[in-house]
Amino acid sequence: MNDYQPVPEDKFSFGLWTVGWPGVNTFGQAVRPPLDGAEAVRRLADLGAYGITFHDDDLFPPGTGAAEREQILTRFRAALDETGLTVPMMTTNLFSHPVFRDGGFTSNSRDVRRYALRKVIRNVDLAAELGARTYVCWGGMDGAESEAGKDDRAALDRLREAFDILCGYVREKGYDLRFALEPKPNEPRGDVLLPTVGHALAFINELEHPEMVGLNPEVGHEQMAGLNFVHGIAQALWHGKLFHIDLNGQRGVKYDQDLRFGAGDVKEAFFLVDLLETAGYDGPRHFDFKPPRTEDMSGVWESAAACMRNYLILREKAAAFRADPEVAKALEAARVAELAQPTLAPGESLEDLLAEDLDLAAAGERGYHFERLDQLAMDHLFGVR
Amino acid sequence: MNDYQPVPEDKFSFGLWTVGWPGVNTFGQAVRPPLDGAEAVRRLADLGAYGITFHDDDLFPPGTGAAEREQILTRFRAALDETGLTVPMMTTNLFSHPVFRDGGFTSNSRDVRRYALRKVIRNVDLAAELGARTYVCWGGMDGAESEAGKDDRAALDRLREAFDILCGYVREKGYDLRFALEPKPNEPRGDVLLPTVGHALAFINELEHPEMVGLNPEVGHEQMAGLNFVHGIAQALWHGKLFHIDLNGQRGVKYDQDLRFGAGDVKEAFFLVDLLETAGYDGPRHFDFKPPRTEDMSGVWESAAACMRNYLILREKAAAFRADPEVAKALEAARVAELAQPTLAPGESLEDLLAEDLDLAAAGERGYHFERLDQLAMDHLFGVR
Amino acid sequence: MNDYQPVPEDKFSFGLWTVGWPGVNTFGQAVRPPLDGAEAVRRLADLGAYGITFHDDDLFPPGTGAAEREQILTRFRAALDETGLTVPMMTTNLFSHPVFRDGGFTSNSRDVRRYALRKVIRNVDLAAELGARTYVCWGGMDGAESEAGKDDRAALDRLREAFDILCGYVREKGYDLRFALEPKPNEPRGDVLLPTVGHALAFINELEHPEMVGLNPEVGHEQMAGLNFVHGIAQALWHGKLFHIDLNGQRGVKYDQDLRFGAGDVKEAFFLVDLLETAGYDGPRHFDFKPPRTEDMSGVWESAAACMRNYLILREKAAAFRADPEVAKALEAARVAELAQPTLAPGESLEDLLAEDLDLAAAGERGYHFERLDQLAMDHLFGVR
Amino acid sequence: MNDYQPVPEDKFSFGLWTVGWPGVNTFGQAVRPPLDGAEAVRRLADLGAYGITFHDDDLFPPGTGAAEREQILTRFRAALDETGLTVPMMTTNLFSHPVFRDGGFTSNSRDVRRYALRKVIRNVDLAAELGARTYVCWGGMDGAESEAGKDDRAALDRLREAFDILCGYVREKGYDLRFALEPKPNEPRGDVLLPTVGHALAFINELEHPEMVGLNPEVGHEQMAGLNFVHGIAQALWHGKLFHIDLNGQRGVKYDQDLRFGAGDVKEAFFLVDLLETAGYDGPRHFDFKPPRTEDMSGVWESAAACMRNYLILREKAAAFRADPEVAKALEAARVAELAQPTLAPGESLEDLLAEDLDLAAAGERGYHFERLDQLAMDHLFGVR
Repeated sequence: MNDYQPVPEDKFSFGLWTVGWPGVNTFGQAVRPPLDGAEAVRRLADLGAYGITFHDDDLFPPGTGAAEREQILTRFRAALDETGLTVPMMTTNLFSHPVFRDGGFTSNSRDVRRYALRKVIRNVDLAAELGARTYVCWGGMDGAESEAGKDDRAALDRLREAFDILCGYVREKGYDLRFALEPKPNEPRGDVLLPTVGHALAFINELEHPEMVGLNPEVGHEQMAGLNFVHGIAQALWHGKLFHIDLNGQRGVKYDQDLRFGAGDVKEAFFLVDLLETAGYDGPRHFDFKPPRTEDMSGVWESAAACMRNYLILREKAAAFRADPEVAKALEAARVAELAQPTLAPGESLEDLLAEDLDLAAAGERGYHFERLDQLAMDHLFGVR
Repeated sequence: MNDYQPVPEDKFSFGLWTVGWPGVNTFGQAVRPPLDGAEAVRRLADLGAYGITFHDDDLFPPGTGAAEREQILTRFRAALDETGLTVPMMTTNLFSHPVFRDGGFTSNSRDVRRYALRKVIRNVDLAAELGARTYVCWGGMDGAESEAGKDDRAALDRLREAFDILCGYVREKGYDLRFALEPKPNEPRGDVLLPTVGHALAFINELEHPEMVGLNPEVGHEQMAGLNFVHGIAQALWHGKLFHIDLNGQRGVKYDQDLRFGAGDVKEAFFLVDLLETAGYDGPRHFDFKPPRTEDMSGVWESAAACMRNYLILREKAAAFRADPEVAKALEAARVAELAQPTLAPGESLEDLLAEDLDLAAAGERGYHFERLDQLAMDHLFGVR
Repeated sequence: MNDYQPVPEDKFSFGLWTVGWPGVNTFGQAVRPPLDGAEAVRRLADLGAYGITFHDDDLFPPGTGAAEREQILTRFRAALDETGLTVPMMTTNLFSHPVFRDGGFTSNSRDVRRYALRKVIRNVDLAAELGARTYVCWGGMDGAESEAGKDDRAALDRLREAFDILCGYVREKGYDLRFALEPKPNEPRGDVLLPTVGHALAFINELEHPEMVGLNPEVGHEQMAGLNFVHGIAQALWHGKLFHIDLNGQRGVKYDQDLRFGAGDVKEAFFLVDLLETAGYDGPRHFDFKPPRTEDMSGVWESAAACMRNYLILREKAAAFRADPEVAKALEAARVAELAQPTLAPGESLEDLLAEDLDLAAAGERGYHFERLDQLAMDHLFGVR
Repeated sequence: MNDYQPVPEDKFSFGLWTVGWPGVNTFGQAVRPPLDGAEAVRRLADLGAYGITFHDDDLFPPGTGAAEREQILTRFRAALDETGLTVPMMTTNLFSHPVFRDGGFTSNSRDVRRYALRKVIRNVDLAAELGARTYVCWGGMDGAESEAGKDDRAALDRLREAFDILCGYVREKGYDLRFALEPKPNEPRGDVLLPTVGHALAFINELEHPEMVGLNPEVGHEQMAGLNFVHGIAQALWHGKLFHIDLNGQRGVKYDQDLRFGAGDVKEAFFLVDLLETAGYDGPRHFDFKPPRTEDMSGVWESAAACMRNYLILREKAAAFRADPEVAKALEAARVAELAQPTLAPGESLEDLLAEDLDLAAAGERGYHFERLDQLAMDHLFGVR
């Protein structure tokens, strides 16, 4: 019997800010003590993860002096060396400090934008040093509550400027590092710049080095807009831009819940794992969740372990779904593969196409048998086949 | 006193399917008789519109023979000539007939995809003949209820193929016509391909002739995903892709309401008109709404007239807002123009930037005075300044 | 191995309008032929259902004469007799005909309100004759797009008047029939009266015979408002008002999808079945869904069968969850049963309570271990325990 | 010209926690210093408010000793006396402290429930002493993320027990104080008990002293569920349960924004003020908003002043709308008053009703002219009539 025990080859990683979240929100105080970075490394390694990620401020509380920073880093590296855990991704906190109250790269204040760039650049050096290959940028405070206060087109100009500068810096330094944008529709700002996977994909095309910038989509962020995450990921893959992914759970259009992976839209989680495993995504399976405030530290580790467990369970089920001969028949009946055939045959002219006729009545009666196919997926999800 | 009487120079246009909607929906039967195209032309001209648009099936009910088609067209043209109304845009119905039950350009059925292409191409000829400059494509049935039944990446391949074929056709014919994609997140499909302005913008970049394809965003479609329409339009403008626009109203995340323009999110309508009028958009102000089923034909025309009235009222208010010296001061206090300044000065090196320091405490205390600015906008909206 | 074959004792019932839905919606035409009522009875019986329900207009198309009505009824009864299928519930169509464009019981037109009452009363006689015990009332057109056009308090007065009249009629006739209100937040009206389970529960308290009126909540209707259906059902049960239930699926806040049961929020479906099976609900498990337009009739029956299959699968899983000793331990750790203990002990005075003190720091550190418990539920859902 | 300067007779009140919100949320730190209660009293009085309200913890930070508490209270009372500001409402913080991580009155922990009761009772004494007439209860932490962890029916039992105890206490003490429940669908819990106005109204009916308990609905809380706030308030009024009201703004289904009043759904704000002013509500117009984090203290006071300004503007507009003879005609055409006529005439029997017939075709063609009426409302909102 499969015990769904993760191993490093599964490439599971966690943000330090996830298991380390003390639980402060708009309405409530901290419910858990701060979590030491080195301790987090050891616990995550014990659970079977292969990587840990962090914002600069997660590891070095703002105001940390140079000496103390070095001490923290030494202890953190020691834990990494000891456990073999990697740092596949790093990111910057451009949202918590009051200085970012109107954003980071697109703050109306030029001095804040400059500070934000410095904060990222300094952390990019550390990322390179620690061997991270992906640098995530979430501009959660880059947005507005009032349309009057933000010139969106100027904001996009500044955002482009920022990424052109950052890509230039990485190229100059010769770092093997790519940037991944993380879209979100709202919260903490009323509306956030680059609100969805689509908006971010479009933005990237305007950069000097679009090949250096991709996406880090998060399950809940798209679902907060009622968008289907699987379709979003498919489009990101189609554009060759799925650089990293944030796995978690969300129950519909509401505040950002950051539930553990699996504990939101179960069916979409199934199809997501199916897509990731069959489409050749080979990056980290990164969990960006918040263990509920009801949990003490033992619950935090239960929750983290369950993120990985659910991924492994769904991976097994998705594989069984794809291997099932009944599913193959149902896919055939649903004409799924027919969509891969070009609409015009090779060499066919438009004249040929225009000369053709379709029996509308007959074609209109054709059923697509998606219900049968979808139910087979559910049977596999339930484990009853 | 301004009576907000529209004139053709205001460039207001209406879909024939809007004032002509008989009121059939999932739960209810037709409540109004069919509306003749020529009659619609005359009524819209009387109201002050400059254009009418239509799907092929709006003018020629499916199954119309060649002779009858010619008669309908003759009468329609006569009404256009008589009134001076134009046809600035045309589009195809690829969603009503049962043959499109799994989509048009991305139906799993190859023969349906081929039929869809023929249907568009034939109508593109008419569009060119009638002088339309924009050809809108809304793929409302191109989507899925089950992830299992649709290979999204193949669907995007087919969609790209379709637009490459169509752009090739238009170039070959030498038509002065551009395509405009209309995104929508869902309904009538559970999830629709290219669900938002962003996804469609990203898609266009993969085409052979991206310069020939832009967007036709619809107010309600973005708001159905809880997205801010003004920010979406700003991004479309930033990419140079606002080819056309569908104005209507929506009250939040729910079914597609297609309310008359102004009767949804009033504040967002104000900022939308402000943006369109100041950002140099010079295309049609096209209304795509559905007069509620409670209305008889007199109510339909009241509703259509009110769409234009609300635009003119908001245009006047937005102009007053921009001309108000107090607003200028408030924009200054909010540092709005400062965002247009490059973050790096011309010629400035990264070394300069990195050497700089910011007084975090002081910069963190800085207020942005957006509430004052936003309230000035509301005062103008209310007409109390 | 369990093949999840339903039997009449499972009390599964279907609306005639569900399997009989031809597929007309706002954007599309009928994709399937009309379904004969007697044929529906036979097919549903074959699948293992125990009941069929219908709106008057489902069985007798509007305008059906008395003689034809009798013929239809005779054939329908014959099918019932032959198969043993029951009619546990009936309802009235007060929404499709143009006469209901501003509602039924709360139309601004008094003559329409009177017609609506007559339409219900006549059908109530048939309901009693056919042995139905529940009469559902969905006032989908009782709402508004503009606040100006509807006096809500008068509307509630009229709604109360209607139910007082109907209850009076049923009592006078001595029918063994109860009414069940079906709330819905919106669609087809912009906003619907009695939008949620809560609003309808509150309304019932103002009636002359509140004991004769309860609820028929529908999964998707509450989820369209982002509300948790399980919590809603629990409150309806707490008030003793779960008279009937409409099972289907919905994927979040959007248009009314009416997916087959199970194919929406899978986790909520699990907990719903768990609640229904443990809380003593013994009414019909009624499916109110719409087989997607992509399906032909074979797909319609696949979809209907899957509704029942999913219920049976989830029933088995929920039972296993409740029987699992690890779950019992987890419930204990989560203090779930402690909530059933009165906060004040029997006979305890407020003085006692006020004299007590709590170690806030210690109690604040207490974890509730809900993640562990919830993951056990998911393990059962996935069938991996 | 009206300068919309509020006076105490307008009955505007503010929560101390609104203007005093330092700006901590899930993603960001405090951006503003703590605000002293006495200072808040003076500033609000200067702006024209008549009342201030508070949670116990707003005035007395948790852990405040008895002596310090007395000092704070003395200064606070002095400010009240000096300015004439009243304390029309008080409430308890049962959500911020870690002890409430699983709720207050419905925590799974009995000792926490007991502590919550003590905390409320002690503060009720102060409320009575300060002359408050309404005691608000918002159970924001009374909810769940997992259905498994919370027995909803037991939770409702405990909630009933709590209010029966509290009402008993108030009666015993002879306080002139009523309780007002504040519903909210979610946040900070995944799902909150009594999620809407409707659910809370229904709950009240099960209490020992339902006459002592009513509602304190909040604009944004209903709109977070996509519900129409005006319709909700109308139903609350219909039940005689609008004891208090929380005015603010929200832009659709998303996280709880707590925008200043007017700055959300403008049209619904207009109809809300219209309803409050015409339906005889004479309680406080209480603002429960959060000045955005972008504001410094000057912006906070601008934002507070604008809440009142917007109410006064809308009050003037609503009065003009109701006084407009064209509106009277439009209401007549829309048959709005006809809904106040009983459907059955006094003394009329059901036989009379059943004998009647309706010309369905003619009645089906009838238009309701709501678009004209709604546009008149918008004209008044815009100030262009």
